[in-house]
Amino acid sequence: MESLGIAMIGCGTVGGGVAKLLDEQRVRLAERCGRNLVLRRVVVRDPSKIRANVPKAIVSTDASAAIHDPAVSVVLELVGGVTTAREHVLAALKAGKHVVTANKHLLAEHGAEIFETARKYERTVAFEASVAGGIPIIAAILQCLSANQVTAIQGILNGTSNFILSSMAEQGTGYAEALKEAQKRGYAEADPTLDVDGSDAAHKLAILAQIAFGVTAPFEAIERIGIANLHEMDLRFASELGYTIKLLAEAWLVEKEVALHVAPVLLRETDMLAQVRGAFNAVQVNGDAVGEMMFQGAGAGALPTASAVVADLVDLAVGRAQQTFQAAKLWSTNVRGFTLRPSQEVRSRFYLRVLVADKPGMLADVARVLADHSISIASVIQHEALEDHAEAIVPLVIMTHYAPTGQFRKAVEKINQLKGAIPPGVYYSVDD
Amino acid sequence: MESLGIAMIGCGTVGGGVAKLLDEQRVRLAERCGRNLVLRRVVVRDPSKIRANVPKAIVSTDASAAIHDPAVSVVLELVGGVTTAREHVLAALKAGKHVVTANKHLLAEHGAEIFETARKYERTVAFEASVAGGIPIIAAILQCLSANQVTAIQGILNGTSNFILSSMAEQGTGYAEALKEAQKRGYAEADPTLDVDGSDAAHKLAILAQIAFGVTAPFEAIERIGIANLHEMDLRFASELGYTIKLLAEAWLVEKEVALHVAPVLLRETDMLAQVRGAFNAVQVNGDAVGEMMFQGAGAGALPTASAVVADLVDLAVGRAQQTFQAAKLWSTNVRGFTLRPSQEVRSRFYLRVLVADKPGMLADVARVLADHSISIASVIQHEALEDHAEAIVPLVIMTHYAPTGQFRKAVEKINQLKGAIPPGVYYSVDD
Repeated sequence: MESLGIAMIGCGTVGGGVAKLLDEQRVRLAERCGRNLVLRRVVVRDPSKIRANVPKAIVSTDASAAIHDPAVSVVLELVGGVTTAREHVLAALKAGKHVVTANKHLLAEHGAEIFETARKYERTVAFEASVAGGIPIIAAILQCLSANQVTAIQGILNGTSNFILSSMAEQGTGYAEALKEAQKRGYAEADPTLDVDGSDAAHKLAILAQIAFGVTAPFEAIERIGIANLHEMDLRFASELGYTIKLLAEAWLVEKEVALHVAPVLLRETDMLAQVRGAFNAVQVNGDAVGEMMFQGAGAGALPTASAVVADLVDLAVGRAQQTFQAAKLWSTNVRGFTLRPSQEVRSRFYLRVLVADKPGMLADVARVLADHSISIASVIQHEALEDHAEAIVPLVIMTHYAPTGQFRKAVEKINQLKGAIPPGVYYSVDD
Repeated sequence: MESLGIAMIGCGTVGGGVAKLLDEQRVRLAERCGRNLVLRRVVVRDPSKIRANVPKAIVSTDASAAIHDPAVSVVLELVGGVTTAREHVLAALKAGKHVVTANKHLLAEHGAEIFETARKYERTVAFEASVAGGIPIIAAILQCLSANQVTAIQGILNGTSNFILSSMAEQGTGYAEALKEAQKRGYAEADPTLDVDGSDAAHKLAILAQIAFGVTAPFEAIERIGIANLHEMDLRFASELGYTIKLLAEAWLVEKEVALHVAPVLLRETDMLAQVRGAFNAVQVNGDAVGEMMFQGAGAGALPTASAVVADLVDLAVGRAQQTFQAAKLWSTNVRGFTLRPSQEVRSRFYLRVLVADKPGMLADVARVLADHSISIASVIQHEALEDHAEAIVPLVIMTHYAPTGQFRKAVEKINQLKGAIPPGVYYSVDD
């Protein structure tokens, strides 16, 4: 049986999972792709460390030697980041090697350069593990839904954030405490910034926007609102209104424009995405033929992510990955002609919570500002004064009907300036 | 651009959807597979009928002429049933044509013959639409989860049954009324027998068992319990205990044996499958690397099913389907060596509801029988006497711990014979 030689650059959590599967499931994998998947080289920073499932003889610090080894035909990039990862990927393609990567950050920022280089050298880049870990969302959109134009994507793409929001909503814990628990369980990094500020989800959304709509979205073009400032009070009000707040990465097709954002969004409690708890990931995809679909599973972790990486290796061994790569023409000519819609033009319903002095006329003033901006109110909650404020302060919660985001934001700016209002008014999109 | 010539045999609901996609999305599909997908022949019983998206000139009643047309390289079998469908599929393969089919009944009964013929004539059979309509569960298991051994599958594979159960649980409607509503909405056939008795789901489960475990399950080997005798009372008790009842098609790997059944099952209300409402389908798959995954979407309907059929056509045009077919070796040698586990050996928790005379000692008698069969009780509900019985009758509801099915059934037989019990005792599996 022929072999497929693999060089793995980086051997952290995911790399360990990949080595485990390649080693322990050798027979199973060979049976499924008609070739032996053989790990020939593993490149790490510290070769003295003992690694399970990795023979010491194949470990080195020399990425270039691994890439240029004639026995290697696939380079698996698992170092992360965008600097050396980019160099390794480009070098591998130029050396005539296929590339498998789980690096969303790299593809989101350098997708065009990498895919162009791959096409030039007639090599394939496979990247199933870069979005939503073990969930095969890339294959689903590129292959399984190929009869459809995707019209909308809503994803819970960051497990750390979802774990935090689930804990806050279900146990009523505060943000800081929920984050600590996520770190204790190994979901969140010591520095969780990229998770909780929406950057990680935005990188993944950029990849999904490319495969579903053919648009290249610069990172700055994706509006990001994280969860670090989300208040327990807003989760409670949302719940009272029958909604759950989730950090969603969303992309919609509106006419010929694609709207993208990462933000906390209010979902109806009966919505499938609202049910996704803990560190799970989920992606809802709407297709113009298939309708609404949802995929849910582990979005991170050694073995779930390795499951996606090894599926790419199997696809390369079988030859499917090469065909998909050629057919998909990613980061290439924008054949569908979609462009990005500026965020202020996106129409949405909104949840607005503003703290106001407990005095007559405040609701009238806020409602007047919204009316002046042609924003129609769907419902209102006004509660008793908050106990933890010295003066009498009440939270005023308003759900609006659909309005353009830019228009709504102008209204909130005005509301922030109202006498008796305690800025800033906090607002989130509402999905129906 | 080269063409892929298609002959479609049968042009009902799904055929109409396929014709619509091929006609209206011609440009999109050609762009995605580098070939024009061209409908060359449509074979129907009544060619005089006007069909949208199908030029009259390509319609005929002559299946053989369509199959042997040199301009046709793929035959799309959409007639359903197992008699003429089998003949057309075998004839097509022998004529050197690839086959795409949505016919679960045919594959469940004649999979071995069809796949063997396809291998002999070096042609491909693609069948994504045969299970769960628009949900790409075949591709998910065969390709995307190729690094995994699937360890369990739980599917809501019959939309009609799920619609009926959802209506009964949510609106408290009776079975007959819910079925009528399903028929009114076009979910259920005039004769809904195959839907509600579990046969349709069992056909789909046989296909999933083949692709996930490599086992060929004769139809009779899959135990089927339908929903036609499900009583509202049991939905209410289940709800009281925190469970929802769903008609599930389930397959588990236990040691080297695969257990299969289609039956109403109690799921915890927080379980993802318990949330699947209305006519949707959903499949939960556990893989030994990826963990728990769930796929949800439309399991029937013209365009969702056509979405899966056309994805197969695209995969054939690109060449992926041929590679997957070769690599998967379906209905072939059972390389994994799994066998079927007899249903009585399957261990499960059970919900048991038995009507008993409202007299002292009944609970003691029932509990004694269970104890004599080494079945341990987890919880009990006993309610007030039922109003609609002339004599005083009470429903006794017992949730057991794990027990072998055969052992449990023997106990129920004994309980049915107890003095004061009104047989039969009704029982369902409980998934935790």
